[in-house]
Amino acid sequence: MLADDALGRGRERIEDPLPQSYFDAFNSVSRDPNIQLMVADDGEGRVVGCLQLCILPGLSSQGASRALIEDVRVASELRSRGIGELLVQWAVTEAKARGCKLVELLTHHSRVDAQRFYKRLGFADSHVGMTLRF
Amino acid sequence: MLADDALGRGRERIEDPLPQSYFDAFNSVSRDPNIQLMVADDGEGRVVGCLQLCILPGLSSQGASRALIEDVRVASELRSRGIGELLVQWAVTEAKARGCKLVELLTHHSRVDAQRFYKRLGFADSHVGMTLRF
Repeated sequence: MLADDALGRGRERIEDPLPQSYFDAFNSVSRDPNIQLMVADDGEGRVVGCLQLCILPGLSSQGASRALIEDVRVASELRSRGIGELLVQWAVTEAKARGCKLVELLTHHSRVDAQRFYKRLGFADSHVGMTLRF
Repeated sequence: MLADDALGRGRERIEDPLPQSYFDAFNSVSRDPNIQLMVADDGEGRVVGCLQLCILPGLSSQGASRALIEDVRVASELRSRGIGELLVQWAVTEAKARGCKLVELLTHHSRVDAQRFYKRLGFADSHVGMTLRF
């Protein structure tokens, strides 16, 4: 799914076997208590959606933790059926339960549908998301 | 410094003693090996700038970690002297050293000077930064 969109296609290397770097990253994520990788499955064991939630302590806003949602993906043939909404609602609920006062995310300017989706779920397009890629 | 700008003023509680929540957050940040709080001092022990750098493992981009810069602040009377630039350059160098392929940050739409500053340092305003505040 990570490679299954216009931006991901050029960034991923989907081969069999997968490059070791994916397994290394999965192990790092698994070890980090502040990062959760959540998947949606179709009831028959097939992963049809995913997102990554990071809980980040910080000093600002009276020492409130914030949550960062990254890498939201839904299988292309199953979009617009509420799978992404379930995943993001889970992330928001989890962020609240862990004491966060803010959930934030960056979405590429070109992902206009995603921006509409997040606004529908209550997010504001309040910030500029700036990136530096090496 | 966290309270010393238009947005921070309404969000912080600067009292003596500081609310316990700031100390709790500082302890959480200190315990997390993926979060670094960097300060600039004026050579006489006074903190004149700060930022928080988070290193976040993740599966996308072939399992590349990304870095998130948060809460960049410079004492108001010492702005435009390169302190913020030193801090951000440190964060970018550290992110590279820790294997990140991407540094990202959100800056409020109203912080036009900040956006110009980050562009000068090579950042692109490629994303929409979306937030949900509780």
